[in-house]
Amino acid sequence: MVKVGVAGYGVIGQRLADGVARQKDMCLVGIADLAPTLSIRALKERGMPYALYLVEGADKAKFDQAGIPVSGTFADLIGKVDIMLDSSPGGVGAKNKELYAKAGVKAIFQGGEKNTVADVFFHGYANYEKGYGASYLKLTSCNTTGLIRSVDCLDRAYGLDRVAITIIRRVADPGDYHRGLTNALEIDRAPSHQAVDLMSIMPHIEATGILVHTPVTHGHIITVLAHAKKGRITKDQALEAFKTHDRIRVVRIEDGFRGNASFFRYARDLGNPRGDMYEIGLWEDCIVESGDNIMYAINIPQESVTIPETMDGIRAALKMQPDSKSATAETNKYLGMARWKQG
Amino acid sequence: MVKVGVAGYGVIGQRLADGVARQKDMCLVGIADLAPTLSIRALKERGMPYALYLVEGADKAKFDQAGIPVSGTFADLIGKVDIMLDSSPGGVGAKNKELYAKAGVKAIFQGGEKNTVADVFFHGYANYEKGYGASYLKLTSCNTTGLIRSVDCLDRAYGLDRVAITIIRRVADPGDYHRGLTNALEIDRAPSHQAVDLMSIMPHIEATGILVHTPVTHGHIITVLAHAKKGRITKDQALEAFKTHDRIRVVRIEDGFRGNASFFRYARDLGNPRGDMYEIGLWEDCIVESGDNIMYAINIPQESVTIPETMDGIRAALKMQPDSKSATAETNKYLGMARWKQG
Amino acid sequence: MVKVGVAGYGVIGQRLADGVARQKDMCLVGIADLAPTLSIRALKERGMPYALYLVEGADKAKFDQAGIPVSGTFADLIGKVDIMLDSSPGGVGAKNKELYAKAGVKAIFQGGEKNTVADVFFHGYANYEKGYGASYLKLTSCNTTGLIRSVDCLDRAYGLDRVAITIIRRVADPGDYHRGLTNALEIDRAPSHQAVDLMSIMPHIEATGILVHTPVTHGHIITVLAHAKKGRITKDQALEAFKTHDRIRVVRIEDGFRGNASFFRYARDLGNPRGDMYEIGLWEDCIVESGDNIMYAINIPQESVTIPETMDGIRAALKMQPDSKSATAETNKYLGMARWKQG
Amino acid sequence: MVKVGVAGYGVIGQRLADGVARQKDMCLVGIADLAPTLSIRALKERGMPYALYLVEGADKAKFDQAGIPVSGTFADLIGKVDIMLDSSPGGVGAKNKELYAKAGVKAIFQGGEKNTVADVFFHGYANYEKGYGASYLKLTSCNTTGLIRSVDCLDRAYGLDRVAITIIRRVADPGDYHRGLTNALEIDRAPSHQAVDLMSIMPHIEATGILVHTPVTHGHIITVLAHAKKGRITKDQALEAFKTHDRIRVVRIEDGFRGNASFFRYARDLGNPRGDMYEIGLWEDCIVESGDNIMYAINIPQESVTIPETMDGIRAALKMQPDSKSATAETNKYLGMARWKQG
Repeated sequence: MVKVGVAGYGVIGQRLADGVARQKDMCLVGIADLAPTLSIRALKERGMPYALYLVEGADKAKFDQAGIPVSGTFADLIGKVDIMLDSSPGGVGAKNKELYAKAGVKAIFQGGEKNTVADVFFHGYANYEKGYGASYLKLTSCNTTGLIRSVDCLDRAYGLDRVAITIIRRVADPGDYHRGLTNALEIDRAPSHQAVDLMSIMPHIEATGILVHTPVTHGHIITVLAHAKKGRITKDQALEAFKTHDRIRVVRIEDGFRGNASFFRYARDLGNPRGDMYEIGLWEDCIVESGDNIMYAINIPQESVTIPETMDGIRAALKMQPDSKSATAETNKYLGMARWKQG
Repeated sequence: MVKVGVAGYGVIGQRLADGVARQKDMCLVGIADLAPTLSIRALKERGMPYALYLVEGADKAKFDQAGIPVSGTFADLIGKVDIMLDSSPGGVGAKNKELYAKAGVKAIFQGGEKNTVADVFFHGYANYEKGYGASYLKLTSCNTTGLIRSVDCLDRAYGLDRVAITIIRRVADPGDYHRGLTNALEIDRAPSHQAVDLMSIMPHIEATGILVHTPVTHGHIITVLAHAKKGRITKDQALEAFKTHDRIRVVRIEDGFRGNASFFRYARDLGNPRGDMYEIGLWEDCIVESGDNIMYAINIPQESVTIPETMDGIRAALKMQPDSKSATAETNKYLGMARWKQG
Repeated sequence: MVKVGVAGYGVIGQRLADGVARQKDMCLVGIADLAPTLSIRALKERGMPYALYLVEGADKAKFDQAGIPVSGTFADLIGKVDIMLDSSPGGVGAKNKELYAKAGVKAIFQGGEKNTVADVFFHGYANYEKGYGASYLKLTSCNTTGLIRSVDCLDRAYGLDRVAITIIRRVADPGDYHRGLTNALEIDRAPSHQAVDLMSIMPHIEATGILVHTPVTHGHIITVLAHAKKGRITKDQALEAFKTHDRIRVVRIEDGFRGNASFFRYARDLGNPRGDMYEIGLWEDCIVESGDNIMYAINIPQESVTIPETMDGIRAALKMQPDSKSATAETNKYLGMARWKQG
Repeated sequence: MVKVGVAGYGVIGQRLADGVARQKDMCLVGIADLAPTLSIRALKERGMPYALYLVEGADKAKFDQAGIPVSGTFADLIGKVDIMLDSSPGGVGAKNKELYAKAGVKAIFQGGEKNTVADVFFHGYANYEKGYGASYLKLTSCNTTGLIRSVDCLDRAYGLDRVAITIIRRVADPGDYHRGLTNALEIDRAPSHQAVDLMSIMPHIEATGILVHTPVTHGHIITVLAHAKKGRITKDQALEAFKTHDRIRVVRIEDGFRGNASFFRYARDLGNPRGDMYEIGLWEDCIVESGDNIMYAINIPQESVTIPETMDGIRAALKMQPDSKSATAETNKYLGMARWKQG
């Protein structure tokens, strides 16, 4: 049984902890954080299903005052695990890495850290073998993770050599008060880093793109124009490939999936914990052909989309499964993915 | 065991069904709807925990096509229950009432229906005795339900004779695409109907107010200026009363409850089904005195706030408990309310 | 001096009236509307710079009550003009056309009407000759008008055969209360009508695309992937062409043009009437190459962008100038376009 | 002819400059700023109607590169004026004050500075005499300025001793990218500073209140519950007083003034420079009585509402008029206020 810890119990950290807890071949030892945030207070109200450890600089008196039990220090947690999932605020992970290295513990960092923090920039489908046995992995960001799922899917089926993307980015998560945008679209200097990141994971594909921030909280939407290495991919061919992917949920506008908020509502209606969804969405009625390119649109549930690929990362780093196919199959089984296809 | 059906499986209907399913002295017979909406599709993906009946006008072929099993007609459902919770779209409930009357089945309507649909305009705390044994109840709207909780709380403790409210209303629910507001506040002709409705439930209190719609989806905020019948209520007295109420959650900005979205996030972090919260929120650091008035602010989780009072309504209509105190205690026990106070 | 009337004094109608008033070779005879809307009330507060005529169904008593002077009936207005600019609500224009036809008056309809209302679907740059002498023109919609400016610009310079677009659409105008979207992105079935419309104006180009609505009020943003008929267009070549166009404003993020709201603010800071801008924006730092495609992003000021092309339409229909070059030059001169380039 | 300079040409600074330029008994000598912002670039595109001076720390090379002519240094500007209007970012004004003091120049600071920067916290109607001849004034913030107009109006007519307010605050201005809020309401610790500030201007009134931020950009809405010192104020009495005030625009929902965005649209339709409005709005159909209190709602155009009171401040500091009545009359005449009442 692989032992896992989580550093940083925020939007991503909570979901990493839940994800590990659902993997029957992994054991969540505990989580670490700095302050009695709302998420930590909720953990307490839930009866502390996960043990809490305090990172350096935490004021224990504040936890005591709020009646939140503490199980030990960050060093205590690190001492008990095989691997740490680090979802600390950007920059903190790099400092934590020194502690992990000293303790001989492996680690997986989230997209907010610099690439240099890790040996391998990792995606469970696109380059599992690169992460096999590695000590330090860094996950792609939420947009890149979801985007690569779809690009890798077409690439395996038909071979791609180029993509051009437009990212319509949600600017904050539900409940965020530390950032926001009001009645404005904001454009980033092109090319977007997601396109650049895709190329570092899939070097045989030329990628570029433009990103626009929008004042919403539920899910990014990305349009993708993908070019086949040879010949062309028809709409039916693309759809056929997408439908077989366990982490892509193909939907239709006419069934009620009118936008990113429909996915959020649907996940709540499903009773999913936190109203989360692990799959990206892909609209069947938004696939079009453009010359020898295929164009489509995907929905990225930004809070939860990287959880499956992080579970894959644990499997790779700790050599739990030899290849992407067997590793992702385990992850998907425990997360209940593609269950909806069995209808 | 009381048998309950739900008509209209939308935002409210789903939550009513969940609420009944949690009452150990009630049995949810099934739900009825018209079309294979996202919520019905989610029910199917969950494995049909609730039996589905089709109302008149439903196209069964569409359900078959989507692989959604159907248990019978609306008449079938009505024939099996003691009481119907009707959360159909506004106006439909009045038509359904004829079917309920013919079948000799009681019913509780939601706030969207006209008051004339019911014998009693009902609130579990403020006028339980009026609903006792009644055939047709109508619940107050989400804002009025939450507002009355707080006003009734002060009224019982200290006696009130007047309130003036400002409602800062969320304009749509997460996932709503049929209504919306973009970068605008919209004001309604005063007095707001919520103030008028409060007076029909609590006729000894003079109420007025102004309502402003805002382009957000998580929770209304209401400021209340309450006037004591005799003397004045201090901040400490108000706080003491609020803290004892099982359906009021007293919070602090400094703990992270910065606004309506914080409650939404907290409920998701708690792992509550659908990310819902049954309590209204009340900010300890936003209570101020104004002459002989006490002023405070509450947060109304619009999707779920009326569920407890509807459970109370079932208890009243079917004479399950003799008074508000015992009925609300049962409801609260099954819904797990005030569990957070036990620390 | 060409005599012009405007039917429908709403968001577009007001700007058409202003646009005509600025053309020194045209005379605005008056405007027509149905009710004392805010815009009509503002016209009155301004001292009635434009004469008001009432369309059929208008309740004159309401205008009298508000102290708004009326100059006559819709028929009176039609009887005095050479051409009507019809910006009535969708569908009304088709009915008005009968009146225009009976009076032997030409007309230009806005994008909201069906294509069948007109003899020619018109754009001042891309197909001026089609509108020359025609009786009934229909303007392309705001998105299509701005998009075609940029596509036509590259096409003239280098030759294009294909475009794929992603439209990030603002969902309402400032002050709109009859439509809106709250915290949601909404996707339309692909291909978007704007791509289809482009093909009907520029039949030698294959176009497709995806449209996503966003909850903002200031300006659509479109990303365009354009394919050269021969060879490839470099970033520098594209930029060179864009910079010469009188209706394209090339800007940089680093100068402060961070998104659609920056253009709105800038136009207000310029002191432009109504805070309007006639040019589309184009970001120099968002042009990228993708294989043999050039990708760029434009900003569409939806309220005012079609005004110049409508002025061009008057020139075409009434044979005021023989070709696009001379007609657009007149329009641009009177509207003060490209004045900013003279710096 | 009084000579005036403006420091900080941002949202407020631009409007102060315009306001001074409209006062026929004042002369705008120039404006000062630090960087070639969008607003400065717009000034250049307009042909530099106002002379530009550079504050310390400005990089003149950047202005040269953008082709923006510079007239001198901040010291040069200060040397030429009788009074400075300081709308620099918060905190900078306090530093600038030293320069003003050294040069023997008076100054008026905006609401963002600390109260200690000035000798007098000023409002043109409520305490003109306090500012008469003073060297350093500080204007109340936009919300407080508009609020005091309405409270002072009732106070003069009928006498008040208490107000309780709820501020529904717009969170950013159009075009703001440095702050924002997305799908959330945010509440501030009570009492709001606006209520506290009101008491420092009108010490005979007890004031308290609650403030909630909302994700919109056009206009704050405030509800006010005002208590008469003696007896009670009826709705008709309140309305009568409000209608006589030159800086209050009484409107009706049924005429189309549905919310803050309607005012913004109306001001644009009026052709007002920048689409601004100097008056606060007040809804006739939102005035209600609550016991012996009168309750009403006002709309605050945050970008421009403090301009008239700042002009009043110049008049007071430089002893141009002896009292509020004559000073505000001059300001109102030049700004064209209450012209709408003349029908």
